[in-house]
Parts: sequence; structure tokens; C-alpha cells
Amino acid sequence: MEIIEGGVTAPKGFKAAGVRAGIKATSTKQDMAMVYTEIPAAVAGTFTRNLVKAAPVVYDMRVVEDEKIAQAVVVNTGVANACTGDDGYKNAVEMAELTAEALDINEKQVLVCSTGVIGYKLPMDIIRDGIKQLAGKLSGSNEAAEDAAIAILTTDTHKKETAFKFAVGGKTCYMGGMCKGSGMIHPNMGTMLGFITTDCAVGQSLLQKALRECIEDTFNMVSVDGDTSTNDTVLLLANGMAENALITEENEDYETFKAVLHEMCLYLAKQIAGDGEGATRLFMAKVEGAASLEDARALAKSIITSNLVKCAVYGRDANVGRILCAMGYSGVQFTPEEADVTIISEKGTIKLCENGMYTDFSEDEATEILSPSEITAVVTLKAGDYSATAYGCDLTYDYVKINADYRS
Amino acid sequence: MEIIEGGVTAPKGFKAAGVRAGIKATSTKQDMAMVYTEIPAAVAGTFTRNLVKAAPVVYDMRVVEDEKIAQAVVVNTGVANACTGDDGYKNAVEMAELTAEALDINEKQVLVCSTGVIGYKLPMDIIRDGIKQLAGKLSGSNEAAEDAAIAILTTDTHKKETAFKFAVGGKTCYMGGMCKGSGMIHPNMGTMLGFITTDCAVGQSLLQKALRECIEDTFNMVSVDGDTSTNDTVLLLANGMAENALITEENEDYETFKAVLHEMCLYLAKQIAGDGEGATRLFMAKVEGAASLEDARALAKSIITSNLVKCAVYGRDANVGRILCAMGYSGVQFTPEEADVTIISEKGTIKLCENGMYTDFSEDEATEILSPSEITAVVTLKAGDYSATAYGCDLTYDYVKINADYRS
Repeated sequence: MEIIEGGVTAPKGFKAAGVRAGIKATSTKQDMAMVYTEIPAAVAGTFTRNLVKAAPVVYDMRVVEDEKIAQAVVVNTGVANACTGDDGYKNAVEMAELTAEALDINEKQVLVCSTGVIGYKLPMDIIRDGIKQLAGKLSGSNEAAEDAAIAILTTDTHKKETAFKFAVGGKTCYMGGMCKGSGMIHPNMGTMLGFITTDCAVGQSLLQKALRECIEDTFNMVSVDGDTSTNDTVLLLANGMAENALITEENEDYETFKAVLHEMCLYLAKQIAGDGEGATRLFMAKVEGAASLEDARALAKSIITSNLVKCAVYGRDANVGRILCAMGYSGVQFTPEEADVTIISEKGTIKLCENGMYTDFSEDEATEILSPSEITAVVTLKAGDYSATAYGCDLTYDYVKINADYRS
Repeated sequence: MEIIEGGVTAPKGFKAAGVRAGIKATSTKQDMAMVYTEIPAAVAGTFTRNLVKAAPVVYDMRVVEDEKIAQAVVVNTGVANACTGDDGYKNAVEMAELTAEALDINEKQVLVCSTGVIGYKLPMDIIRDGIKQLAGKLSGSNEAAEDAAIAILTTDTHKKETAFKFAVGGKTCYMGGMCKGSGMIHPNMGTMLGFITTDCAVGQSLLQKALRECIEDTFNMVSVDGDTSTNDTVLLLANGMAENALITEENEDYETFKAVLHEMCLYLAKQIAGDGEGATRLFMAKVEGAASLEDARALAKSIITSNLVKCAVYGRDANVGRILCAMGYSGVQFTPEEADVTIISEKGTIKLCENGMYTDFSEDEATEILSPSEITAVVTLKAGDYSATAYGCDLTYDYVKINADYRS
């Protein structure tokens, strides 16, 4: 597998576009995006488990479940189309219809995503005009992929996209991905908005299985603020234009494809964690030696979700007590007296805690090791062979500033 | 029931003291406190459910369970005596022994509480000297109660104490209480440190039952930051010196006593929520019309625990979408399309959401109503007759500042 330039348009037959439709009158940012495949693609999707689901989430769940095929995705920022009742659902359907009309494709094969403020209705006149603009701008260039990757952002500070080249059954395949997400990030399924395209030919049921499995230890292990959004969606479109033999069973080709998909999900998930609202660093917690995978995941996630741990990471404070405390209230049974905690970064490695007690570590050295923009806390439990990593960020003044002011 | 001046020394036979022993070399704050009853008292206690329990918590749990009687409580701040292994437990035992010696009482009837930084050992020389000072200063005055209430504080901005006068079986009784807690506050049992004294005569098993029940909808409904501490403890001492007929069954006297205890727990819990680290306002969520008490509690707590809701409260932003979102990921099944949300404060009442959709409320009016130092969000579900209230605070720059710098 090779990382290449580009994003969602890297696979054969995919086009994209991003435009400013003007949904937020006060912003000059691009606010609508479209992804299109020349031939209909098998589609897999994972969606928020929040009971309060936005209208486009409810709509897309039906498309993935019933149609299993899609040819276009249309996205708007600014308004989440959540808590908008029957009118909200009608507007999601209309977005799909308008897109199908503009592209001359089957309206049942259009997916719709929205992100932004909860509770407000979509400005359908602006959306209608935006869709026309998008359809006219669709292109397979890297620039078009970048336009789309920028147009889906909200409080994110940078675009999040990448592309991979890989081989399946002797054929060269490509995979492209983009995502957005910075606040209200504590996915319980997929997360925020993520879009992955590939020209690899994969049967829909295996496509869905691969996505579901890859998401568990990537997007689902990310947390910025513990708030699971109403709009979380990850969509994966596979149009088969690489002309590899269609993957319909869990053979070597499937394993290859799934490994590439996992890399893609991991890359995008880490991008989101590191660009958490107000964050200054990506903070990862790896729990090793747990008695079960569930334990390892729950412990790792409890650590990166703790506000106190996150503040300590911001302050470069080697506050291992808060890490042990966060593990203690995770609900997982473990033996604190056997836990070791080590911090790792590009500046070095330091063991802060051994068998549940503080080591005699140097505070100055710990502060130095906590300084880079990526830090990992490794917890070793000696209870079993399971491990898991969770991806988070520090909690800063700017998180509060962004969320005291921004109507999300 | 009447609110009176004073704190833990209000009931007959109780004395208290607070001193500066010098546990934190960099601080000039009082850092040790003692509460003493002239005759041994029935004792009830509730403790953190965090798996990582501090040594004094483990010690006190045994005293309450085995002895059921106590005559003194000694408290230190600065060092939590958590994650300190066998030595930590020995130090907790020694604190009890030194206190018993200084007061000439049974060492098995001394309770020990610590709060402060996790992972460090108690400076036993300083503790020993502090205990001697405390024993020499014990007094039944209001000033002594205040000294103790101040000495137990850490990042709290003000003391938290009160006293009540009430009648049981024709006898005048008193109840006094004090507590501390500002960060690492998300109790799952009791909370932080809370001390309640009374001269009302109550059998130990009923005392424990009353405390456990009162805690469920007071201390256990408070959250500052979602972090359940390793040291949470609430202790209740009843010395019987009011000479009422000993309460040994759930009669009218018990109901009277329990109602007063509930008021005490509620008062102290609200004090903690409103003085959350960096908080500018007490934020309460009341969920009405829930299908069960558990649902009402889980929903109310999910609202006040959400970082995004807390930031919105800080920004006086009528962001009802975040409230619905937080309810949606609480794990409780409810019908979002039937939920109403109203904000109430001394500035008025405003309905933000009706049947799951935004009302056409005035933003200016909402900002005005969100401005006072106490705000309640009332959520009505129309699913049943159960209600619950949770107590939290806003999330501010100062929370981050305090916790990026403070080694808790």
C-alpha cells in the first residue's frame, strides 16, 4: 500500500466538487460538497447511535439498508437538519431529488449529509442553487477533491483527506477519503462526517462488514468532548472500476482490502482527534495486557475522555493520578496495584507509574516528553493479552471559547 | 425546620477545629481539620465507587462497616493518599492512632479523610504535629466550625457549611454540615468530602439507610467534570445528645429526620455544583414526565455533564440542540418528538423547544434569562410521572486554567 496525493477523486470514476452556496450569511466559507461516481457504487454506511438522529441520517440509513447502491453524495454545512420534524425529513428527501435531477441519476441512489447548528431548517432555495453549482463543477481532479474536503469543514482548522494506491487480485486499486469533525465528537458507531471512495470491486454485504469492523477501533475510539453527535455518518462507496474480481467472500483479496480500509479509517480518525476544537495536541491512550478487548477499549476511552486528564495534557503535567482515576471509574474491573503507566512521544519515553505507585520520575523530563504535538500514554495491566488505543486531544481555553460562542 | 447560624458544631456535644499544618509548603492555607463528639456517635458513610480507592476510603469503609460508631474525624488536604500502596494504608491507620492518642479515645472510632494530589505519600511528621494542634484547639463555637469548613477546602472558592434546627419527638435537635469539592466531581455514591453532624438519636442501620437514600438524588446528581474521584466520602455522625427517643424504626420521627437530612445533603450538593472549578453559574437540569426514576436521573445527569451544554451555559447561548443531543446519547429510550425544554431563572421563563422542535423564541430574551448565577433547564417528556434534578455548572476558561496548572 502506498500513500498518494489526492483524496476522494483518486479512485477511477469518482468526481467531486465544493462550492459556497451561502447557507451561513455571516461566513465566506465553502459550505456544500458533492461526491459522484460515474457508475453506481456499492455503498456501506455507519451512523450515529444517538437516539436523536438528524433527518439526513434517518434518510441515509434507509438508502444503505434498502438500496445498497449509491451514485452521489451531497453535503451541506451550517445547518444540521436535526430536531426539525417532518419538514426536516422532507427537506432531506428534496436534497436527494434535486441532486438526482441535476445529475440525471436515480434519486434513490443519492445520499445526503448535513452538519452544523441543530434545530434550524435548511434554507432550501440556497441548497437548490448550491446543488446546481456543484453539479456543474464536478471534476476528477485533486483540486476538486480538495474543494470538497474544505467545503465539508465546520470548526475544523484544516482539511482532512488522503488517498492510497494498493493492489487486489493483480489489479491496481485506489482508495480516497475525507472527513470533518472537531467538536461534538464522541462517536458511538462511525463519527462526524466521513467519506471514503474506492474503485475496488467489493460486494455490498462484505463492504458493510469491513466498514463496521474497521470503525470499531478507529472512529469509535476517538473522543474530543464526550458528546456523541446527532449527525455522525461514515459512507464508503465502491464502484468496482478497478476491474478486480468482485470480492464476495472473506478471501485474501478481502483481507487486503480491509487492511487498506483500516489504514484509511485510522488516518482520518487521528486527523479528527488531533484537530479537536481548541486542541494543541493529539493524545492517545494505549491499554495493553487487558483481560478482554472490551476492557482495553473502555479503559483507553475513559482516559482520553477525562476532562482532568485532558487539562493535564494541555498543561504538560505528568498527572498519572488522573489517568488511574479515570480508569477506576470506567466500570472495568482491573487491579490498580498492577498497573504501569508510561508516556511516549518523539522526545522520549518515561515510566510514571509502576504497579499502581508513582515512580521517582523527573518532573522536568516528563514535561519535556509531554511537549510534542503527539503523545501516547501506554498503560500495562498484566491481566491478559488484549490491547486497544483511543484517540483524543487536550482541553484548552479555546475549546471553551469556541463552544461558548458557536451555535452547534 | 429552621436554618441557623453555624456548621458542624451546631449539634450538642460536637466540637471542631481547623489549622495550618503545612502539608503544602507553597500554600498558606489551613490544611487540616478535626470534628469530635463528646460521646461516641452512630456513624453512617458513603464512599466513592471508583475502583481506585484512596487508603483513607478503604480504612473508613471498614470502620463504618465493622464499628458502626465513631468519635472523631480527622481530615487533611494537599495529599490524597491515593495510589500509595501498603504504606499509604499504614499512614491512614497511623493518622487514626495519633488522633485517638491526642484525644484519649478508642482508635477504632476515628475516621480519616484525605484530599489533594494523587500518588504522593502523606508527610507524617507534619500530620502528627497538625493532629496535636487540632486536639488543642477543639471548640464548640461557630468560629471553630468555620475554621474546619475552611481547612477542608482545596480549589473551592468559598466555604460550604450550614446548620439546621428541627424537632423530633418533642425534643429540639440540630444538624450541621460542611463539605468541599470543586473539581474531579462526578460522584457515584456520595462525593468529595462531606461531613454532617447531628445530636438527634438515630439507630446506626437507619442512619446508614437515610444517608444512602438522601445521597441518591443530591450528591449523586452533582457533576462538575464527569470525573469520579478516588476519595469521595460523606460521613454522618449522630451522637444522640438531643435526648429524643432513639429512632429505630421508620416512623414519623424517622421521616422528619430524613427530610432534614435530605435538605442538608441538597444544600451541600448545590454548594458544590455552584462552586465547580472555574464555574460562573449553578446549572440545574430537571427532567419531568419520564417513564422511570432511573430514566429521569440519567437524562438529567447527561445534560449537566455535557461539555457542549456547559460551554453554552457559560456563553448564555440558548443552545437547546445540545440539550436534546446530550439526552439522545444518555442511553435512555425516549421520544425526542415529544420533548419540551424550558429555561427558568430569576429573570423569567422561556420555552425553547416544544415537541422536539425549536419554538420561535427571542434570542435576546433567552440570553437575559440565561444570565443569572442560577439557571434551571426543565425538560418535559410526557412519558410518565417520574422526575429528577441534576446539579452542575458551566465550563469556563478558568476550569482549564485551574486544571492545566493544578496537580490534583
